[in-house]
Amino acid sequence: MAKRFILENIEWLVTVDSEQRVLRNAALAVEDGKIFEISSAGSLTGDEVIDLTGRLLAPGLINCHTHLAMSLLRGWAEGVDLQGFLERVWAAEGAIMDAPTCELGTELGALEALLGGTTTALDMYFNPESTHRAAVKVGLRHIAGPIFFDFPGLDGMEWNERIAYARGWPEKLHSLGGPEVPLYLMPHSTYTDSPEHLRDVAQLAEEINASIHLHVSENVAENDDVKARYGKTPVEVLADTRILTRHTVYGHGIHLNDHDLELTRGAGAAIAHCPGSNMKLGSGMIDLTRLHQSGIPVGIGTDGCSSSNDLDMWQAMRMAAHVQAMTSSPANVDAKRIFSAATIEAAKALGMEERIGSIEVGKQADLIAIDLKKPHLSPIHDIFALLVFAAGRGDVTDVWVDGERVIQAGSSVRVKVDELLSRVHSRVKALEGLR
Amino acid sequence: MAKRFILENIEWLVTVDSEQRVLRNAALAVEDGKIFEISSAGSLTGDEVIDLTGRLLAPGLINCHTHLAMSLLRGWAEGVDLQGFLERVWAAEGAIMDAPTCELGTELGALEALLGGTTTALDMYFNPESTHRAAVKVGLRHIAGPIFFDFPGLDGMEWNERIAYARGWPEKLHSLGGPEVPLYLMPHSTYTDSPEHLRDVAQLAEEINASIHLHVSENVAENDDVKARYGKTPVEVLADTRILTRHTVYGHGIHLNDHDLELTRGAGAAIAHCPGSNMKLGSGMIDLTRLHQSGIPVGIGTDGCSSSNDLDMWQAMRMAAHVQAMTSSPANVDAKRIFSAATIEAAKALGMEERIGSIEVGKQADLIAIDLKKPHLSPIHDIFALLVFAAGRGDVTDVWVDGERVIQAGSSVRVKVDELLSRVHSRVKALEGLR
Repeated sequence: MAKRFILENIEWLVTVDSEQRVLRNAALAVEDGKIFEISSAGSLTGDEVIDLTGRLLAPGLINCHTHLAMSLLRGWAEGVDLQGFLERVWAAEGAIMDAPTCELGTELGALEALLGGTTTALDMYFNPESTHRAAVKVGLRHIAGPIFFDFPGLDGMEWNERIAYARGWPEKLHSLGGPEVPLYLMPHSTYTDSPEHLRDVAQLAEEINASIHLHVSENVAENDDVKARYGKTPVEVLADTRILTRHTVYGHGIHLNDHDLELTRGAGAAIAHCPGSNMKLGSGMIDLTRLHQSGIPVGIGTDGCSSSNDLDMWQAMRMAAHVQAMTSSPANVDAKRIFSAATIEAAKALGMEERIGSIEVGKQADLIAIDLKKPHLSPIHDIFALLVFAAGRGDVTDVWVDGERVIQAGSSVRVKVDELLSRVHSRVKALEGLR
Repeated sequence: MAKRFILENIEWLVTVDSEQRVLRNAALAVEDGKIFEISSAGSLTGDEVIDLTGRLLAPGLINCHTHLAMSLLRGWAEGVDLQGFLERVWAAEGAIMDAPTCELGTELGALEALLGGTTTALDMYFNPESTHRAAVKVGLRHIAGPIFFDFPGLDGMEWNERIAYARGWPEKLHSLGGPEVPLYLMPHSTYTDSPEHLRDVAQLAEEINASIHLHVSENVAENDDVKARYGKTPVEVLADTRILTRHTVYGHGIHLNDHDLELTRGAGAAIAHCPGSNMKLGSGMIDLTRLHQSGIPVGIGTDGCSSSNDLDMWQAMRMAAHVQAMTSSPANVDAKRIFSAATIEAAKALGMEERIGSIEVGKQADLIAIDLKKPHLSPIHDIFALLVFAAGRGDVTDVWVDGERVIQAGSSVRVKVDELLSRVHSRVKALEGLR
């Protein structure tokens, strides 16, 4: 028999569906991990009923660009720009980030993400088998993928090994289980992957039907570097190497000229906007209004914890709104649109809109419940403004992924936090003396 | 006998004293509302011992510019700049903000502030007796003061009534009780108070030995307006009217030219920096590095909930850091300095540094405890970066003001939240149909 349960007495149900419906006093039935029925309170039946009186139900948040394992380096590189940041972080990564440590860091990051209401993350890091194993264990919908650098990175792989590993990735991903996610290949960037290598990845992506995630135009120095080498912008390099398709997601994508925008829109690619990291590193402020006008899908991300310094998508939404107000006008900021960029528009950016990103019958039950009985969430004049400008990770009480409750009353159902934190503290002792 | 208690097993004690000492495994004794002794764990005795294992103790945060009662208008004015904001908000205020409603809104705001670790707020609003009564009831160290507009505002007072009321303020403040605070007079701004009226306030301030708080150079339109009227910048108007002294605190102070800075520094005045509100309204981004170089004390504020949209000083700190990185360089951002701007530097800005702002023997016991046993607060590589870039209101467990525990395990000792929220929801029903 199908596993069925009812979420009952939902005070506010924010669907983020195509009509942006917001329901009051609703109920929702989940069957076999999917949203089966949406109705008014008291009208659905089931053996298991979870009462959400005084709470809001929304789709789980989707973090479109992060490096979960870097949670171990939270606060490690302060007071530096992107290039100074990379220097410091790469040294620390070299010192501790073996495969088991990537697994540990991802366990920590995935747990933080889920506790804060993030149910899906596009996560670029070394040792994707290890990171994926950790995230699946914690309960996150986790998109990992092989990473590509010209040079042997933390994992010590030569280029041909990377390609061979990536060719076997679909099978590995399948064997690791967890909530269903698309295939992704993740070359780091145009400044760490040569055009020839990007062509290799593009060809492989076509072969195995994978999407692409990489860093693009994060700051001006990066653009200058790439232009000096190739006489082209990073986006032009992507277009040239045919790695730019509708399945390509840029991390950052701040400094795009009109031609870059045209190429991006033409390809149907998407942008993962990380305003917190961008401001902290002084990388720049995206002109979100311009991107909206161009029709490019924009999802929101946090980036990794060494530049953000946490995985708080509520923060990221709020900063996205603030950055938009500053780069164009507050009149252009629509909290509804910002909330969409963390839910349904993010799902579109990742090519997952058929499965997640909104509360609609037939979609997977990736859901979050928010406790509204707090002073900072009262009164409610505008529910989307409340979500974007006042709610926070501390308000999330329960989280479901594929209909499984992985966070209950603010605690992980699967992970013993104290035990995890003590493993984390032991491991990072190896960094002592490095600075 | 003196009321004494011990805070024991404090994992991290962040003093923010002149040496910026951070102690590990500490204990602290409070007697008669004051910090009596600071020592190592296990070395102090007392009848009442509160165990802070796994927690961080810091000075309470100081919100240098807010309008607590406007918590009732959270989310009321979205997608507008400062001038559009004022138009919408003034209409709503006109509809509901009588004295009892000011009291209700301040009760809500003060509770939100305390729950999030703010122990002191400089709060500009109508009906200061009502707002002060509410904040004192909830347990906040609350700096209210008579407000001045050229026109009769919500309170319907003519100018002479305002002056007469303000002359009686010291006595009223005294009779209302609550944690000790300085006297403040609060003319709204140079665009709502004529130079003649500002002179009246300056004279009265000298007479009763009061400090001054007002809005200054919040956006470019304001500056243009004041310049068109008087041929002077807002700061020049302040200097001319002799209301600019070392006891003057500017709300915002974003758009200051070199002469304004010189006048401000020369007077010894201070700035309350509200980065969240400033970005949301598109007002501008303060150049904090320039202010630091000029030697002007800068405290952090949230502004009111209709533009911020909450009273979260953790958010405000983080945004202050981000804005500084963007307006100068990430290399200039020092998390320690940002945390100071919400504690000891804020106390200096308000002329309260002898009493609050740091954990030092002899100061009032305005203290906050933070639960570190959370994934987003692990590991700890840099304690100030953790506080500024990762911690949040949801991590505050206990709050003391004048040595009295007003928040315990995340809940108010004094206020029944459900009952307060239901009063709030009833009252704001009067706004229905207004837009």
